[in-house]
Amino acid sequence: MQIPKASEVVKSYKKIKSFIHHTPILNSTDLNEKIGTKIWLKCENFQKVGAFKFRGACNAVLPLEASVAKNGVATHSSGNHGQAIAKAAQIKGIPAYIVMPENAPKVKIQAVKGYGAKVIYCEPTQLAREQTLKDVIHQTNAHFVHPYDNSDVILGQASAAWEFLHQIPELELIITPVGGGGLLSGSILAAEAFHAIQKRPICKIIAAEPEQANDAYRSMISGSIQSLTNEQTANPTIADGLRTNLGNIPFQIISRAHTQIVCVSEESIVQAMKYIWERFNMIIEASCAVPIAALLEKKIAPTFKNVGVIITGGNVDLDNLPWNKAG
Amino acid sequence: MQIPKASEVVKSYKKIKSFIHHTPILNSTDLNEKIGTKIWLKCENFQKVGAFKFRGACNAVLPLEASVAKNGVATHSSGNHGQAIAKAAQIKGIPAYIVMPENAPKVKIQAVKGYGAKVIYCEPTQLAREQTLKDVIHQTNAHFVHPYDNSDVILGQASAAWEFLHQIPELELIITPVGGGGLLSGSILAAEAFHAIQKRPICKIIAAEPEQANDAYRSMISGSIQSLTNEQTANPTIADGLRTNLGNIPFQIISRAHTQIVCVSEESIVQAMKYIWERFNMIIEASCAVPIAALLEKKIAPTFKNVGVIITGGNVDLDNLPWNKAG
Repeated sequence: MQIPKASEVVKSYKKIKSFIHHTPILNSTDLNEKIGTKIWLKCENFQKVGAFKFRGACNAVLPLEASVAKNGVATHSSGNHGQAIAKAAQIKGIPAYIVMPENAPKVKIQAVKGYGAKVIYCEPTQLAREQTLKDVIHQTNAHFVHPYDNSDVILGQASAAWEFLHQIPELELIITPVGGGGLLSGSILAAEAFHAIQKRPICKIIAAEPEQANDAYRSMISGSIQSLTNEQTANPTIADGLRTNLGNIPFQIISRAHTQIVCVSEESIVQAMKYIWERFNMIIEASCAVPIAALLEKKIAPTFKNVGVIITGGNVDLDNLPWNKAG
Repeated sequence: MQIPKASEVVKSYKKIKSFIHHTPILNSTDLNEKIGTKIWLKCENFQKVGAFKFRGACNAVLPLEASVAKNGVATHSSGNHGQAIAKAAQIKGIPAYIVMPENAPKVKIQAVKGYGAKVIYCEPTQLAREQTLKDVIHQTNAHFVHPYDNSDVILGQASAAWEFLHQIPELELIITPVGGGGLLSGSILAAEAFHAIQKRPICKIIAAEPEQANDAYRSMISGSIQSLTNEQTANPTIADGLRTNLGNIPFQIISRAHTQIVCVSEESIVQAMKYIWERFNMIIEASCAVPIAALLEKKIAPTFKNVGVIITGGNVDLDNLPWNKAG
């Protein structure tokens, strides 16, 4: 298991820079007043494919050598990673095989197909996903790109915080949501790299996760990777991007950094999500609302003067909004 | 009637620059491919108060002399102009009196009050609005800021296109929606000013408006300001920001420039609105979707290589989206 180094962040960023959007930062007086400090949002919902995942996909796919690339790339995904790999492969001009559960939202399947990828359906279980992917790779010799337990992916995700720190060098804290840990561990590396190069005090990285999927929190306490409880699996969090367990590589990086993880309720996630929609006029996924909820719930000490939040993505089913649901 | 000059655009921009957001530009490969040319969106939905109207309000309110300012400012508005004036007055530290129809959306009333303004309710007719405003001004001696028939407001709105042209100097065309004509006429002045200073070919300005509120189109043909027809008033366009007649000052500027106005159907407005929500992950009002609809309907010749669209605002009732309506 190869742990990526902070010193590799710059090199990766240079590789992918011209293929990704340099996403804008937004802020609002109302949010600043509510929290009592300056909050800056890094809008990866405006990234290509609508999520930061495109950064990791680019860094994992674009530099592939011809001998590997010629067989294409493969992954399993019901979410943004599949779209990201499909688009990165399209740019590289190589095949992409995306294993998707047969009950995945049509709009996501169409998006993946729209980038020219081949979709292979499987039953909606983790086991079926992994077996189907294995079969696909056996048949095609395609290169597997794991959504987060992959050094190149992590270094690609690091570019979001890296850009962010250059845009707002005064940041003392960046909060990210945590699912598999790719963005979180990448952000830790980016803060270390920025600190080493710019000789500024290091920017702290804190993660936020739903109480209803607090596996990362429990993993940090127990010192080993934990899964969702049966109750959490039966009543999944609305933040569907954060239901996964931590990857091994991210867990190593997060453990080494003693990263603090704060947990928030489902109610506060929906409230924070709607607040951002209304005040910032932008569409964010429930997962992105988790750090905002942590701030609004005052779960993070207001001693930081400049706080960054990475808004991870905006791919939402507009016909099925949480505040329009019956009951 | 004082017609503002292109040469005043720079001076106005300098006055308001530090109070407004320098809004970002977004683009998308998918939209570019659909239209067959490069489309750039200037995101005034991320402006303070969620709309470009804040620019005009700042330019009309902030420079007021103490002797005038001490009595405060007043306007009537059911939409973004009221919020914009309220916030500009808050910054200036003077009273604001906003006449609003008693059936205005609660969220808009609350927003105006949130900026510290006094809300005066009236019956929801044009006559009642004007009479109530007259009474308010009689009692308070407040300075009236018209939403578009005001040189300072127009020069403030000009700053959006002015910034836009500096961000993307290659723009050959900017499309704006047209209601009262403040943004449109301001954009014409900004293009003239940019042309004069930068010595580049002048950027063309075209306006888009709903067929169901094509009064500006008819005004340009007839050579005098036209109103909505009875049928158009009875079945109002979804683009509620564009239901007003042209102002006198905007009409002078637009007529002099021989501005082309293209009209689009209600259906195409809703489709374009949802398209932008889905592809750009941002919230735009129906009014902003009108230029996008004109592009998607191929009503504008695709000979322009770089086309800008000013996304005017994002204040939408999230509980009442047009594609969630029954029927």
